[in-house]
Amino acid sequence: MKAPSLTILLALMMALLFTDAIAVGTTSSDSSDCIECHQDFTPGIVVEWERSLHSQRTPKRAREVADELERRISATTTPAETEKFVVGCAECHLLNPEKHEDTFEHNGFQVHVVVTPEDCAVCHPVEREQYAENLMANAYHNLMSNPLYKNLADSINGVRIHTDEGITFDQPNALSEADSCLMCHGTIVTVDGMETKQTLMGEMDFPKLIGWPNKGVGRINPDGSKGACTACHTRHEFSIAMARKPDTCGQCHKGPDVPAYSVYKVSKHGNLYSSASYKWDFEAVPWKLGEDFTAPTCASCHVSLLTFSGEVIAERTHRMNDRLSWRLFGLPYAHPRPKSPDTTIIRNKAGLPLPTELSGEPASEFLISDEEMAKSRETIQMICLACHSTQWKDGFFTKLDNTIEVSNEITKAATALVAEAWEKGYANGPSKGHSPFDEAIEMKWVKSWLFYANSTRFAAAMGGADYGVFQNGRFQLSETIEEMGDWVKMMDMISTKAEEQKAE
Amino acid sequence: MKAPSLTILLALMMALLFTDAIAVGTTSSDSSDCIECHQDFTPGIVVEWERSLHSQRTPKRAREVADELERRISATTTPAETEKFVVGCAECHLLNPEKHEDTFEHNGFQVHVVVTPEDCAVCHPVEREQYAENLMANAYHNLMSNPLYKNLADSINGVRIHTDEGITFDQPNALSEADSCLMCHGTIVTVDGMETKQTLMGEMDFPKLIGWPNKGVGRINPDGSKGACTACHTRHEFSIAMARKPDTCGQCHKGPDVPAYSVYKVSKHGNLYSSASYKWDFEAVPWKLGEDFTAPTCASCHVSLLTFSGEVIAERTHRMNDRLSWRLFGLPYAHPRPKSPDTTIIRNKAGLPLPTELSGEPASEFLISDEEMAKSRETIQMICLACHSTQWKDGFFTKLDNTIEVSNEITKAATALVAEAWEKGYANGPSKGHSPFDEAIEMKWVKSWLFYANSTRFAAAMGGADYGVFQNGRFQLSETIEEMGDWVKMMDMISTKAEEQKAE
Amino acid sequence: MKAPSLTILLALMMALLFTDAIAVGTTSSDSSDCIECHQDFTPGIVVEWERSLHSQRTPKRAREVADELERRISATTTPAETEKFVVGCAECHLLNPEKHEDTFEHNGFQVHVVVTPEDCAVCHPVEREQYAENLMANAYHNLMSNPLYKNLADSINGVRIHTDEGITFDQPNALSEADSCLMCHGTIVTVDGMETKQTLMGEMDFPKLIGWPNKGVGRINPDGSKGACTACHTRHEFSIAMARKPDTCGQCHKGPDVPAYSVYKVSKHGNLYSSASYKWDFEAVPWKLGEDFTAPTCASCHVSLLTFSGEVIAERTHRMNDRLSWRLFGLPYAHPRPKSPDTTIIRNKAGLPLPTELSGEPASEFLISDEEMAKSRETIQMICLACHSTQWKDGFFTKLDNTIEVSNEITKAATALVAEAWEKGYANGPSKGHSPFDEAIEMKWVKSWLFYANSTRFAAAMGGADYGVFQNGRFQLSETIEEMGDWVKMMDMISTKAEEQKAE
Repeated sequence: MKAPSLTILLALMMALLFTDAIAVGTTSSDSSDCIECHQDFTPGIVVEWERSLHSQRTPKRAREVADELERRISATTTPAETEKFVVGCAECHLLNPEKHEDTFEHNGFQVHVVVTPEDCAVCHPVEREQYAENLMANAYHNLMSNPLYKNLADSINGVRIHTDEGITFDQPNALSEADSCLMCHGTIVTVDGMETKQTLMGEMDFPKLIGWPNKGVGRINPDGSKGACTACHTRHEFSIAMARKPDTCGQCHKGPDVPAYSVYKVSKHGNLYSSASYKWDFEAVPWKLGEDFTAPTCASCHVSLLTFSGEVIAERTHRMNDRLSWRLFGLPYAHPRPKSPDTTIIRNKAGLPLPTELSGEPASEFLISDEEMAKSRETIQMICLACHSTQWKDGFFTKLDNTIEVSNEITKAATALVAEAWEKGYANGPSKGHSPFDEAIEMKWVKSWLFYANSTRFAAAMGGADYGVFQNGRFQLSETIEEMGDWVKMMDMISTKAEEQKAE
Repeated sequence: MKAPSLTILLALMMALLFTDAIAVGTTSSDSSDCIECHQDFTPGIVVEWERSLHSQRTPKRAREVADELERRISATTTPAETEKFVVGCAECHLLNPEKHEDTFEHNGFQVHVVVTPEDCAVCHPVEREQYAENLMANAYHNLMSNPLYKNLADSINGVRIHTDEGITFDQPNALSEADSCLMCHGTIVTVDGMETKQTLMGEMDFPKLIGWPNKGVGRINPDGSKGACTACHTRHEFSIAMARKPDTCGQCHKGPDVPAYSVYKVSKHGNLYSSASYKWDFEAVPWKLGEDFTAPTCASCHVSLLTFSGEVIAERTHRMNDRLSWRLFGLPYAHPRPKSPDTTIIRNKAGLPLPTELSGEPASEFLISDEEMAKSRETIQMICLACHSTQWKDGFFTKLDNTIEVSNEITKAATALVAEAWEKGYANGPSKGHSPFDEAIEMKWVKSWLFYANSTRFAAAMGGADYGVFQNGRFQLSETIEEMGDWVKMMDMISTKAEEQKAE
Repeated sequence: MKAPSLTILLALMMALLFTDAIAVGTTSSDSSDCIECHQDFTPGIVVEWERSLHSQRTPKRAREVADELERRISATTTPAETEKFVVGCAECHLLNPEKHEDTFEHNGFQVHVVVTPEDCAVCHPVEREQYAENLMANAYHNLMSNPLYKNLADSINGVRIHTDEGITFDQPNALSEADSCLMCHGTIVTVDGMETKQTLMGEMDFPKLIGWPNKGVGRINPDGSKGACTACHTRHEFSIAMARKPDTCGQCHKGPDVPAYSVYKVSKHGNLYSSASYKWDFEAVPWKLGEDFTAPTCASCHVSLLTFSGEVIAERTHRMNDRLSWRLFGLPYAHPRPKSPDTTIIRNKAGLPLPTELSGEPASEFLISDEEMAKSRETIQMICLACHSTQWKDGFFTKLDNTIEVSNEITKAATALVAEAWEKGYANGPSKGHSPFDEAIEMKWVKSWLFYANSTRFAAAMGGADYGVFQNGRFQLSETIEEMGDWVKMMDMISTKAEEQKAE
């Protein structure tokens, strides 16, 4: 009986020691000043920070983690003044005051509200660099500076008004944009002077922030940087466990336009996550396949550093593109991943800012080559191969490729129908200087590719059957085309009669 | 090595002692009689009860909890006969037999089946009182006694029949109503004499209950009381943890009409819940922010007693209205919260039992004033401020207010279109004595406000982007209006031709 | 203080011993050979297997479990050569090589890729037998060999093409079918010779498998057997806990056609699962009500062996039909469960391969009798009665029966409308040799029963209110019928004018 008790007690003691060992480093006097007030006035975030690794490790100690795979900081040097202290309020909110348009005097400190990737890069420069090369970092710009996409956004968010001439619509205001597309894409956060606010501590002055609050992935920050690390690394615990869980991605990738999260939830992988992940370790770095987790979440395939028996299966990347060959998201057709994360530079042969022609061909000049596609695919397939045979993997991707091809093919029929409606004058299309997205038949067309063809492809990519059939999948895709055809036919019938009548 | 082992063993011992300490009080002889049979015949509920606090504490002991914030019973006195015993079967199911139309003789006891808020109020009078002043307690009445809402329910549940004259519909029967709207709103539970049933114990007599089973929030009970505590406090464990989890609210607030739960799930708060709540303590009373939980569930913002460092952030309330200024739920427009939980008394200027005019203005006489709105808003914002700055909070609510205004504005276009259809005789509206809700174009109109404008507002209120854009949000709102406009235009074309033809 | 420490240490030691006790039996030399390579090349599945009971128990030991209720193997004898070894790679993948068309030489072994119910039946013959009598085992055959259902699948998956004559569609290719309906229904897995693949170990030869990978429940395997145990018992952990969790069923029963999982999630039972199941024991066999779990998952009602106090409440069955009286799934009407799991033999009076007439009557000859329905219902009700009174149970089922009747009634109106469209020549129906499922008005009809009437009935059967009203329920059912009626009326108006015009 002695043996187990000793072993157990020893293990428990080691655990205590280890916990203690993490908590080295002290809070800086500046941060302590912040906390002194904020533990009374915003206690929730103070507690969250206390639970974070930031509150427990100095950057110096983080750098000194011997095994590179276990290291969670990519900077090889960090500013001398931060070396002694853990990463507290001041270490982030007082950084680079001169660069921050939102810097203001706050109880003796030059504070800024919006902590940005540029600030985080003091310790995490590689992640900032990679992320900047990501479509997501450009999500604001790619949407708002592409006249065609902006037009789609306007046709969705615009305020419909009923007039005697029918329905017209006003441009959405900035708050509506911030509350819809830009909630995920990110706003531009600007400063419009100072304002006095009544707070729990009495009157205080703050910069008047426009486009705030916002945690969109492509936010344009008051220091000019792009992105919001907190979109995924929720403040102020910045838990890696949370970033690795699919619910984080699900905040924006829920659908029906990009139903990745929804598809995942009904996939075998998602089932494993839902049913078995309570036994996984989401904190371990590196993330050890088999030991820490036994089925992929979004992060495992697209972001995380994965190892098995000490060997790297996938390198960590915040340039998630690295692991993708196709861009499943149809505009209006699925296409090879764009070369540049700035997609506003793309022009198809017809001169439109689209990665494909309306007739389906990709605007290849702006998209990665077959070789690059093959390389990206190999990278992600190395993860598949950790559990699946080569044969299995090949069969799976053959099916995916077929679904991409077929769903693109079906999108052509939808596009031809809307073009027919424009040509016959049943709807006002781009050739008449009108939006291609704002009338009933046009919105049906939009749904055919933005919802149904997309959903069908995401279902193929992750094995979420219902999303490829009855839940915004092939059923709705086929139905939409039939409805579009039906509408054109009805308009034909009405018009023909009008013609015949006139002829008589 | 001695030190940790001692500490741990001591802690474990204390845990054992503490567990033991909770379980004071004995089961009454009446309840023991119930259990003797029911542990064989409905063992599941006996086990659940055994896990409940009810089975472990006498009301007396519950009253004696020294710290008022920790006390979970609001009665200051409880009937002498219950003082010695824990709250078992008999303590609830034998209460107030004379008031209960459903009381019947059952193995020597005057038992009633339906335990009601009136019964629970023996120990929880404050909660009963508060809840009665809640819209939810009136959910049956407010739906079924409002001729307009009842008409909407009928147009949904009515049995469509195909005749030579087209589609007609029959009124839904009582069982259909109980299985649809009233599943959440609550039924009227009445007694229609006695009936003999074949049970696992042989033939037994029971009152024949109409409208049973039902756990709707506004149930009208056989003792005349309103509501069902078990809607949220699931019998027979009555777990506070469960009531605090969003899945409880999600039973009814899933949408698309009231998509609160769906929106929450893809919000940052919902993500925190999904990703991190396995570390929270859902049992603690009061609910200590930071210590017990680090992000809100539905209950934290709308019901629970929250503290931080012993200070109260929010008082417990079962009059959830207290913390709400707007009623986001459009009828057909979002409007200030009604003054009275009985909304059947509301008449707009047009004489309709609606909280807004069809043209959009609120029926202000029946709704709370700007001052009351400001006060309710302040109450809920105290909770926001536990984690968010004043600036953040103001920015958030400014965006919400804008979305309420804009979505109301868009609803006007939809309303104008259905009115145009009525005027032109394309649909049969109220002016002809017909339902405004039962034809295709009318149901499109209903969707515009009941689904899409509502969803857009809930997404704004909780930060659930997709529900404000592509998932029943602005996209569908705009699309619906375009489709309504398209249909009216098509009817115009057909009708004009008919006119022209006649004219020739 | 001594007492608790002793107790605890003893308990911990027992736990260690017990863990040790499970792990008896050694891995066969063949399996060890497999693992030697595969722990490097597909480490994920090796780790999963290591966590499985298969890696810990020999079949012999599994058979020797004294209490029959605890036994997890149904074979009374197992092949002598497997007696000494745990169930490793070789014990399944080398079984019955001569029966497996997919057997190939792989590093000295005659391996097959696709492990089938026939292979599993070496240890689990009763489950294989039961499962084969299940609709699910016949899911491929019942869909693909029923000309009407196949036609529906084609109308969904077929590639729409826009031509000058309007929309036509091509048959879906095999990969599209595998990626849509057959993802759940199962593919036919066949072998098309051998192929050489570049693997992480260099070039290797494999059988070229068509229809692979696939884990559909009615998969036709290369040994001629039907089904895939891994659909629910996910390889290679084969966790009973996972099979008992609703997420497993949710992979295919998500809806909108069969929204069982979605309905469950917002039901009281689903709420109990979401809120409280972290305290349940999903591994225990038998599954002890009250002790191991306190609310049903899909498995508890439809599959699992349930006990209370040692008494059996429900026998384990893999012929899930056993516990069902109605088939809620409308084709197009809900009907008594078919007698034979092979539904291709069914012909209604009109000669169609449907379990009901288009006018609503069931094709009774092929469906179970009222007596058999009553018996099945009694079986499942025994589970209800573990927590609910006879009165409650009767009230619940009365409501369900009413909803089945009423939803069938409403489906008649939809069917009459599509028939009217066919008759008037507005759509091309079966009488003209056309598909009844591929035009806009026809797909509306399909949605009325396949989505909305089904959803309404599933909501009634499990108490998921929203799915019976606003989320694909009665609202959408009524709306669809109104839209169908509206369309027919519009076509009438257009056509009448055409007629009148001609007449002039």
